Amino acid sequence: MQKPTVPKGTRDFGPEQMRKRLFIFDTIRQTFQRFGFQPLETPSMENLTTLTGKYGDEGDQLLFKILNSGDFAGGLTEADLQAGSKKITPKIAEKGLRYDLTVPFARYVVMNRNALTMPFKRYQMQPVWRADRPQKGRYREFYQCDADVVGTDSLLCEAEIVLMIHEVFRNLGVLDFTLKINNRKTLAGIAEVIGEPGQEGLLSVAIDKLDKIGMEKVLDELRERGFSEESIRKLDPLFSFGELDRLQLLNQLKTWLTTSETAQQGIAELEETLQFVDQYGLTDSRIEIDPTLARGLSYYTGAIFEVKANGVSIGSVSGGGRYDNLTGTFGMPGLSGVGISFGVDRIYDVMEELNLFPAGAGQGTRLLLVPFDSAARAVALPLLSQLRASGITAEVYPDLAKVKKMLDYANAKAIPYVVLIGSEEVQTGLLSLKNMVTGEQTKTTASELIQLLRSTSF
Amino acid sequence: MQKPTVPKGTRDFGPEQMRKRLFIFDTIRQTFQRFGFQPLETPSMENLTTLTGKYGDEGDQLLFKILNSGDFAGGLTEADLQAGSKKITPKIAEKGLRYDLTVPFARYVVMNRNALTMPFKRYQMQPVWRADRPQKGRYREFYQCDADVVGTDSLLCEAEIVLMIHEVFRNLGVLDFTLKINNRKTLAGIAEVIGEPGQEGLLSVAIDKLDKIGMEKVLDELRERGFSEESIRKLDPLFSFGELDRLQLLNQLKTWLTTSETAQQGIAELEETLQFVDQYGLTDSRIEIDPTLARGLSYYTGAIFEVKANGVSIGSVSGGGRYDNLTGTFGMPGLSGVGISFGVDRIYDVMEELNLFPAGAGQGTRLLLVPFDSAARAVALPLLSQLRASGITAEVYPDLAKVKKMLDYANAKAIPYVVLIGSEEVQTGLLSLKNMVTGEQTKTTASELIQLLRSTSF
Repeated sequence: MQKPTVPKGTRDFGPEQMRKRLFIFDTIRQTFQRFGFQPLETPSMENLTTLTGKYGDEGDQLLFKILNSGDFAGGLTEADLQAGSKKITPKIAEKGLRYDLTVPFARYVVMNRNALTMPFKRYQMQPVWRADRPQKGRYREFYQCDADVVGTDSLLCEAEIVLMIHEVFRNLGVLDFTLKINNRKTLAGIAEVIGEPGQEGLLSVAIDKLDKIGMEKVLDELRERGFSEESIRKLDPLFSFGELDRLQLLNQLKTWLTTSETAQQGIAELEETLQFVDQYGLTDSRIEIDPTLARGLSYYTGAIFEVKANGVSIGSVSGGGRYDNLTGTFGMPGLSGVGISFGVDRIYDVMEELNLFPAGAGQGTRLLLVPFDSAARAVALPLLSQLRASGITAEVYPDLAKVKKMLDYANAKAIPYVVLIGSEEVQTGLLSLKNMVTGEQTKTTASELIQLLRSTSF
Repeated sequence: MQKPTVPKGTRDFGPEQMRKRLFIFDTIRQTFQRFGFQPLETPSMENLTTLTGKYGDEGDQLLFKILNSGDFAGGLTEADLQAGSKKITPKIAEKGLRYDLTVPFARYVVMNRNALTMPFKRYQMQPVWRADRPQKGRYREFYQCDADVVGTDSLLCEAEIVLMIHEVFRNLGVLDFTLKINNRKTLAGIAEVIGEPGQEGLLSVAIDKLDKIGMEKVLDELRERGFSEESIRKLDPLFSFGELDRLQLLNQLKTWLTTSETAQQGIAELEETLQFVDQYGLTDSRIEIDPTLARGLSYYTGAIFEVKANGVSIGSVSGGGRYDNLTGTFGMPGLSGVGISFGVDRIYDVMEELNLFPAGAGQGTRLLLVPFDSAARAVALPLLSQLRASGITAEVYPDLAKVKKMLDYANAKAIPYVVLIGSEEVQTGLLSLKNMVTGEQTKTTASELIQLLRSTSF
């Protein structure tokens, strides 16, 4: 018999990983909720009419499609076969797996437009699927954690997202991170000012590589993409912002981009957002204005956010921005919103690499009861009920096995405490508590035991 | 443009529903964890080689299959087309969606057999998919919440499942339920004793309908299925157990089934399990021995559990049992285990129908700040930060809108408290707190406000 496997690009999450992942999920969920975002879940499958055409040609290729049930091939002809896979797909598959959380959210808003109170703040934490080529850090099934507010263009929402990002990472214990912030309008203004209006997309794709390939190669790429020498020369100021503080940077941007109304609006939006953040009283801010930040630009129209953890070379752990037309493709134009997405897999990698998970996060059972015989077991069972009623995660070894085997079980599961119950314990009522980390063994009563386990996190 | 829809048999869960569902999920998860079950998550997709043949022919039909990526139809011939859908499927789809949590769990255990410490206790709470005909209460995507312990045949595990069931429903507030318990061996013994050995499957399918169609029709069905008149006559005692207490029932079963060693073993297992439950100190037990309980029998070999909520006509909300060969189909025979599954959708329906959700379970934002102008907003924002830092879910209306509009927003979102901030509040520093349920309005300070919101659950 062949050994079973999981499909390429997918993963099992065993107990220790899961407990750490749950710590991340819970932290993000609690923060989303405290900010008034409401939970939403949508089906894993959507109609392909809902998904197709929303992610570009490449995205359409990456959709997982679900074979229709029953006699799906009944209507297929030889002509279909000759037309090829692409033509056959719509005849045999009408559903696909969710590719992101944004399109299902837009679909939900349109379907419930009359019942929803605007502004509508929702969060959603669910897996998405992409038929991408699997590689390190890229999976075919992974979780997204999104929070969006739609139905308002108030910059207060941008400020709240900045706060929420700080709150999430503070609660996770990831204190050393950088939140880069930019505005699509400023980027558009740069393209205008250097004489390449509307080319902010190409511009940002090239500039995005600055850290990796250096300025000279970025400029070469722009030349290849048809930017004139004059445009490239005009881009000079962009590379001299490095050491400026926030105020100096904003002032220099204003001066440089003085002729672009769009840019001035973008800068004003950045300023107002940061002003709100100050009013909220955020101390210890990790914000950095980065006039080159683009994040693919795809549908952002205002603010753009990106978070990277410092001290590790793992890509961005969070990103988002404002869009002006969430539901346009579903026939409901002009709905503005702003959102943020947290990448659980990368946050996990960061926290693992920097050893940031709190001791309790990976922790399961805290105490194992080890009865030596069935008389001891009769003492163990009511004690176990008492421990659990006190909120303590405890177990009894289910079989009457050798003591060594039971202690091995405790060690393998990293259970920090064991209570040994033999004939002496049955007679005296005192319990023998063994600390599995130090090896220390002491006598204790049930109530002392409960107090101890309640007061220590390990 | 066509209005978007969700696929047949799938659902969106909006904010209020989600908050209630999260209450159920959290309660089940916490209870599983307190009993030492460890979290596991497996991929949504499995190889079809893993899934096929595990659920019978009908189950295979109900698997959702995922179309291979790329040029899946490249190798198809006209001969394939003529062979029909069933023959084509394996050529164009190698993956399918999870049908339950048991097979992926078995696959996980086999893949990690060398790393896992036995007994292995895992819980898993994830959606499953079935291409069933949708109808009321039956969906194509729904959650299962399973807890299993494998690698031991200790009846202590059965007792812990009984305890866990009581704990889950107690914590949910579903106090009026019945936990039926039986043993496959007792059922097999009944078939032996009436002279139809090995026919406990057919027997139980018929008896399962006792409540619905009455005794006479059950007996007719048995006749149709080939049971002799003598066998049917011998079945008489089974229908006379109704009013007996636990001890009487066990004694009558022992006498009736005295010639079947299998039955005696089943009865002894039931007795030992209940004895353990007593030792754990479970008070207010909802256990009822039901010698006819079968739950399809499919792979149960020992204990069988089923839970129904009383006072509503919604099917079983939980069920499970012991099996002796979880991983046999993957080449790892003889692994015994026992498990329980909770049906979140049905539990939701029960709690909704009986109005059992606690006030806090459906609750989102507790307080809305309503600043009249931007000076008021400068007062509102730091207050908002203070509230959230105290763990209170609070929002500010993001736009400077008319007060009525902001109050409408609070009402639509069922936000119980609003703080109005106008020029007076800005000057005096006192806040105007409006109770949106009673309409009452009072003056308060920030610290009084925090105290109030911390002390009231609504």
